[in-house]
Amino acid sequence: MGVLHNLISIQDLTREDIDMILDRATEMEEVAALRSKILDGKIMACLFFEPSTRTRLSFESAMLRLGGSVLGFADVGVSSAGGKGETLADTIRTVERYADVIVIRHPLDGSARVAAEFANCPVINAGSGAEEHPTQALLDLYSIRKMKGSIDGLHIALCGDLKYGRTVHSLAMALTEYNVEITLAAPEQLAMKPSIIAELKRAGLSVRVVNDLDGAIRQADVIYMTRIQRERFPDIREYDAVKGRFRLKYEDLELLKENAIILHPLPRVDELDPRIDTTPHAKYFDQVEAGVVTRMAILDLILS
Amino acid sequence: MGVLHNLISIQDLTREDIDMILDRATEMEEVAALRSKILDGKIMACLFFEPSTRTRLSFESAMLRLGGSVLGFADVGVSSAGGKGETLADTIRTVERYADVIVIRHPLDGSARVAAEFANCPVINAGSGAEEHPTQALLDLYSIRKMKGSIDGLHIALCGDLKYGRTVHSLAMALTEYNVEITLAAPEQLAMKPSIIAELKRAGLSVRVVNDLDGAIRQADVIYMTRIQRERFPDIREYDAVKGRFRLKYEDLELLKENAIILHPLPRVDELDPRIDTTPHAKYFDQVEAGVVTRMAILDLILS
Amino acid sequence: MGVLHNLISIQDLTREDIDMILDRATEMEEVAALRSKILDGKIMACLFFEPSTRTRLSFESAMLRLGGSVLGFADVGVSSAGGKGETLADTIRTVERYADVIVIRHPLDGSARVAAEFANCPVINAGSGAEEHPTQALLDLYSIRKMKGSIDGLHIALCGDLKYGRTVHSLAMALTEYNVEITLAAPEQLAMKPSIIAELKRAGLSVRVVNDLDGAIRQADVIYMTRIQRERFPDIREYDAVKGRFRLKYEDLELLKENAIILHPLPRVDELDPRIDTTPHAKYFDQVEAGVVTRMAILDLILS
Repeated sequence: MGVLHNLISIQDLTREDIDMILDRATEMEEVAALRSKILDGKIMACLFFEPSTRTRLSFESAMLRLGGSVLGFADVGVSSAGGKGETLADTIRTVERYADVIVIRHPLDGSARVAAEFANCPVINAGSGAEEHPTQALLDLYSIRKMKGSIDGLHIALCGDLKYGRTVHSLAMALTEYNVEITLAAPEQLAMKPSIIAELKRAGLSVRVVNDLDGAIRQADVIYMTRIQRERFPDIREYDAVKGRFRLKYEDLELLKENAIILHPLPRVDELDPRIDTTPHAKYFDQVEAGVVTRMAILDLILS
Repeated sequence: MGVLHNLISIQDLTREDIDMILDRATEMEEVAALRSKILDGKIMACLFFEPSTRTRLSFESAMLRLGGSVLGFADVGVSSAGGKGETLADTIRTVERYADVIVIRHPLDGSARVAAEFANCPVINAGSGAEEHPTQALLDLYSIRKMKGSIDGLHIALCGDLKYGRTVHSLAMALTEYNVEITLAAPEQLAMKPSIIAELKRAGLSVRVVNDLDGAIRQADVIYMTRIQRERFPDIREYDAVKGRFRLKYEDLELLKENAIILHPLPRVDELDPRIDTTPHAKYFDQVEAGVVTRMAILDLILS
Repeated sequence: MGVLHNLISIQDLTREDIDMILDRATEMEEVAALRSKILDGKIMACLFFEPSTRTRLSFESAMLRLGGSVLGFADVGVSSAGGKGETLADTIRTVERYADVIVIRHPLDGSARVAAEFANCPVINAGSGAEEHPTQALLDLYSIRKMKGSIDGLHIALCGDLKYGRTVHSLAMALTEYNVEITLAAPEQLAMKPSIIAELKRAGLSVRVVNDLDGAIRQADVIYMTRIQRERFPDIREYDAVKGRFRLKYEDLELLKENAIILHPLPRVDELDPRIDTTPHAKYFDQVEAGVVTRMAILDLILS
């Protein structure tokens, strides 16, 4: 089939693979505007064992803009896998007979890799467990490259919940392929896993760890914000204290470098002052659009 | 883009706008039968924050018959907006990157207008709160015009729950653009809001208010029935009494004008004797089909 | 329209009808690989009043591979029929205005036939109550014919839950059109209904009834396994005892005829040793693919 087969972990990709995907995504900007029939007749199965608006609709939009079709489920409740105790392996060996590519989101770590092992058709990981969300990492890289011209040489601050957020895990691992400076800004309770910090250092990156937003945003070219979820905290007062320290206020923009950009995988709660939305720093909705072209590139590289 | 941009409230439309939509819907009768590729490559996002079979499937059928594609969610439970506390504004600013037009149904009054304010793409209100359901009003007008030849000069009786039913609110407001006589027949507890009655009178229409069906149906050319929901009544005996008074019986047909038509936005419970279904008065299933061509016209006017 | 109109019960089909469908399914193997536009512009409505991954996605894949489109609901919770008390008849009379064919799954016996009575468009039964699942029976026949060359002359063992499983009911009735030997292997609590056994005998078939797997598999050319559901048993110990007796073990394969095939409508729980999956006997995933071409044939015969 295509140049790519599966896309399970960002760690399976070389710098060359990533560059190829990002270059193809750039070409997809035009295809997205014009629509096309590149994947006419191809069927994408979306198996969402966890609800998600954004990722699912982004993949569906990408597939439809390439002329393909979509089937699947948005909620495990409506699938056999939910009610009838079917194994993931059996679901995959069934659905591969219905589709040309399987896009899977699943709450368990490693589930997408299991799916790929059992599938004869290509499998794309749309988020598995707390570890992996490779297409999010790729669209983040695409956004950075598009908005800043290149990724190498930048100072990138990853901020907020670095412990449970799978997007920051995949993005951090992707950044080991680049020559960047990294600041990790998280509350103690939500710090980045030591193993990922070790990977960043092994890749030769300069890594700084701080535990408030203030210390992270002044030198950063890219401020990557994430949502801090209340349910991570046993004590609501602890949550309130942390939340306040990791909220980007409108006044904070003065501290930013002139061309610094703010990204966020969304959805957000209140970690970004809404007045930021209309400033040139705010790029999180353009990032949504980057998601469509990046996923068009991935689908095209896998299916064409 | 198209001739229309958003469609949020029937009150945003002039008589000329309405006539243009109804004329286009008439042309769509043929397109619906033949199918077409007018909107090939276009994507419609359906965001249903409230469940609905009829309205959602009607829009989807309209879009598919024009050659377009559909994505979205049918149930807020499977969206971020449900589980993750995302604002409507953020959902809209995200989904507009995935689609060419957004069709939204939402339980809160004013929500469709908020959506339109934040969207760069066109927004169609598929029912918001208790106030607005403009595409239903347009398909009701289309049904009346098609089945009776014209709307002006008719006597139209709106019957049943006139307090909570958003379809009768939008239809009543639409009728202010026409030269019609109106009878409002509702139980006291479910009477039409004074503000809407005032609007009808201000438009110069003759308005009669009655509180049983009997008084409404004898002179009407169009009998527009609605469902009376049990949950509106604290006391079940009160509900039973009212329900009996607003049920159209087969025997009642004798009282009707010879060419009177019966419409109903559906779903119905038992306000229409099933024996009525096969009489020439019953037009509520043809009204369903009118919904498809009316929505085809709206999508075409917005997207072509 | 097409050669077929509705498909409600396997008993509505003659041997000639079945042969025509299976022959068309054979031709669809090639169409499935190449994709086509045979049903371009046609719309299939999927009304699933009971959740199902497999059957729904199989129908959707079939329709998409023929170039058609799909709308509907996967879960009664998101439909009016769920929340608003609409009758099935009204749902059908509405949805037929949105689509060219209705595919319905419903928990009540007879519901698909009711749907067909009220619909002006064709209706396909995708499983109704405990009695009927005709497209499953047809894909089972197609699988047997494809894998064994023909159906006549074979010894077919139906094993497991023969009481509640609608697939085995429809398949047994379909087999009355063929010259086959049948073994029915079920625990006493889950035995095949006497009326179906009587039908098989009336058709002149040799029928043997046993109550363990061992007695069924030695002479069979086709071993049709089904899931035994825990919820059928008031006493968990009884379930465990039965389950053990109706589990096909890897070691059992030695007892099988050399070219015997194992089918299963899926999903399965643990009635098949997973080591069987990779043996040439295991045909249950090929059976999934047979489902797509069989349903393509049915849709084509109905809509072309």
